[in-house]
Amino acid sequence: MASGSPPFISFLSDFGLDGAAAICRGIMLSICPDAQIIDLAHTIRKYAIGDGAFILGTALPFMPSGVHLAVVDPGVGTERRPVALRVARGDMLVGPDNGLMLLGAEALGGITEARALENRALWLESSTSATFHGRDVFAPVAARLAARSAVFEEVGRVVEIDSLVALSQPVASVGEGWIETGVVYVDSFGNARLAGGARELVEGLGDATDQRPLRVAVIDSAAGTGNAEDAVFTTTFGAVPAGTALVYIDSSGHLALADNQGSIASRMGLAAGARVRISTPDPQR
Amino acid sequence: MASGSPPFISFLSDFGLDGAAAICRGIMLSICPDAQIIDLAHTIRKYAIGDGAFILGTALPFMPSGVHLAVVDPGVGTERRPVALRVARGDMLVGPDNGLMLLGAEALGGITEARALENRALWLESSTSATFHGRDVFAPVAARLAARSAVFEEVGRVVEIDSLVALSQPVASVGEGWIETGVVYVDSFGNARLAGGARELVEGLGDATDQRPLRVAVIDSAAGTGNAEDAVFTTTFGAVPAGTALVYIDSSGHLALADNQGSIASRMGLAAGARVRISTPDPQR
Amino acid sequence: MASGSPPFISFLSDFGLDGAAAICRGIMLSICPDAQIIDLAHTIRKYAIGDGAFILGTALPFMPSGVHLAVVDPGVGTERRPVALRVARGDMLVGPDNGLMLLGAEALGGITEARALENRALWLESSTSATFHGRDVFAPVAARLAARSAVFEEVGRVVEIDSLVALSQPVASVGEGWIETGVVYVDSFGNARLAGGARELVEGLGDATDQRPLRVAVIDSAAGTGNAEDAVFTTTFGAVPAGTALVYIDSSGHLALADNQGSIASRMGLAAGARVRISTPDPQR
Repeated sequence: MASGSPPFISFLSDFGLDGAAAICRGIMLSICPDAQIIDLAHTIRKYAIGDGAFILGTALPFMPSGVHLAVVDPGVGTERRPVALRVARGDMLVGPDNGLMLLGAEALGGITEARALENRALWLESSTSATFHGRDVFAPVAARLAARSAVFEEVGRVVEIDSLVALSQPVASVGEGWIETGVVYVDSFGNARLAGGARELVEGLGDATDQRPLRVAVIDSAAGTGNAEDAVFTTTFGAVPAGTALVYIDSSGHLALADNQGSIASRMGLAAGARVRISTPDPQR
Repeated sequence: MASGSPPFISFLSDFGLDGAAAICRGIMLSICPDAQIIDLAHTIRKYAIGDGAFILGTALPFMPSGVHLAVVDPGVGTERRPVALRVARGDMLVGPDNGLMLLGAEALGGITEARALENRALWLESSTSATFHGRDVFAPVAARLAARSAVFEEVGRVVEIDSLVALSQPVASVGEGWIETGVVYVDSFGNARLAGGARELVEGLGDATDQRPLRVAVIDSAAGTGNAEDAVFTTTFGAVPAGTALVYIDSSGHLALADNQGSIASRMGLAAGARVRISTPDPQR
Repeated sequence: MASGSPPFISFLSDFGLDGAAAICRGIMLSICPDAQIIDLAHTIRKYAIGDGAFILGTALPFMPSGVHLAVVDPGVGTERRPVALRVARGDMLVGPDNGLMLLGAEALGGITEARALENRALWLESSTSATFHGRDVFAPVAARLAARSAVFEEVGRVVEIDSLVALSQPVASVGEGWIETGVVYVDSFGNARLAGGARELVEGLGDATDQRPLRVAVIDSAAGTGNAEDAVFTTTFGAVPAGTALVYIDSSGHLALADNQGSIASRMGLAAGARVRISTPDPQR
């Protein structure tokens, strides 16, 4: 953390907009009155650890250095561990050990040390509820770390990095003139981010020159299996007519599907976990 | 207010997310440039004074000391009074006299003095609209109090605390092995908070040991009357299988209904004002 | 900008609530750590330049002086110009040249100078994406202007003010006892703001005394053509019974339609672009 800047905290949750995130913010400002806090997102789909992980991976590299609090926590009050992670860039991440924080940690250079949150002296002074660890455990610890009234080593015992819970990620298959991959995130525009390295995926589609025609088919999705439509490989939305599907490399470096001024996810029935096949006019299979 | 900390303002409204709350924030920062402002919630259901009151009661104890601005105000521009309340913790609350602020004031130790907002010198300089007192009256007064450019006694005449408008609250009945009570708030997860003291309600259900089986029935609700399902008394969501209903004491100390990773409110047709009966396998009636 | 106050940035977009606006905020705080940032709105309807323009026109006069960042940008990555505008009040606006910023600029006294954003040294250091100019171009330039690490003249070449892209606005017709006009914005309460000068429109309705009966008819709307109902000319919502339509001059000075504690837009099928006829009981046509 730059020494001249105020303490920085980013905050992501699935708490919604009706007060729970604000309570955590109030606690953090009470502990660290000069903190700058950015709400990354609080309308993550309820319990969608994968969505939260994707946003953290995309957003954290653009945040000031500091503490990153993340709470999508369907296992609150059970045996899942509350943890803090230190990463190569020097930041600290605080949240549940359920895979939520791993893409964000990776995007900041990878985890250098992990600790379980066990030191109750750093938690909220009053008794700890079984249902709101954001308020009672995670926010107070994050704020004390940001305020430097506690150091990382105080939060609790070291945890083996290999023992942290991981999320399974969709697997991509690359052929000659076709790829099959999974949707990892659908954003508020309805754009669908696809799993796998963008470079390898594009190579599977042959020479992906601008305006190259492609075919997109949904091969596994609760709402969209069997849907298919023509698309164009290009660089940005406005490069195709309104209402046309495009395949492009998005601003976070993922291969993605979009529609110029429409929602490809709504139209084709795509959500995180769906699988799609993208192919050239003459794929080899 | 701690003398070393910046002026603090919390802000709750039903203004939605399309600019009205931001206008009030702009006015407050213009008047009090070093204010820290926390948006408690702006997506309170339109005109739902009871929802706003519940959030204030839950959230204000976790806020730094300062000024709390609250605007859910279906009577804007009519005879309802704009008021400021001073509470035992030392905070001040600013908003309409329609019951909105009473649970919040109680949670901060109770009202010690109430005053009507009559001093137009503290309002917005330009003319006052009949439809946006958040912008024209409440936000400027709140910001001047936070900035200490006005003191509480300047806002207007003393109002009898007993004359403040109250909200009616649902009544709970407690039998042997059963309780009947009302839903006071449904949060963004679909969890339903129930009226009445949690301790008395739990006693009505006999020895409420962990994993005790219960039955929940909706006895009065626009959408759900007649719905019923089995539930379990326990401490947290993950203590029951996904999709199972639970009865628990929530993080604000209320008895509450939830579903592990689902919305009990959607499934059973619950909203604020609905009434439910919770009973043991062998209730006495 | 007042010299004692911290740098101020307001920020409006159609990015939604899932991280993109937070990324821009993170970049701005990295460049200008002491900036105060107000999020005007990020849930502007996707691609609805007119909605964003209306909010900017309504909100900017209540913002502290500073830099105003606005991104509703269906043409991102195409030939449309990124621009910065200086206005008479001294503020600077930063965003796409697609009409989005013109009402806001007008509300701050009008544009005094416009420049194209061409100086890549002020953009994000890493490579520039074709799909997220909010992150890569607009936010960095806005933050550097707010931090005074760049001056307005550095952003790029002067652009003729007359060459800026304008939005077409609905035209109002005023008769004797009737008016026909267009809906320019529907807010989160469902209140519909109408095009045209409020004074001229009210004169068209004859002597618009309080409680004067009127008739409102939808004459062109995707969802509501043909709908009509009685309304009352009055000053505020609570001046009519709940569920009654009213015609009033709203807090931004527009003639508007509302319903006391209901949504007139939902009930009558109104959206931006719809046309309505309002008439007295005996209009001359």
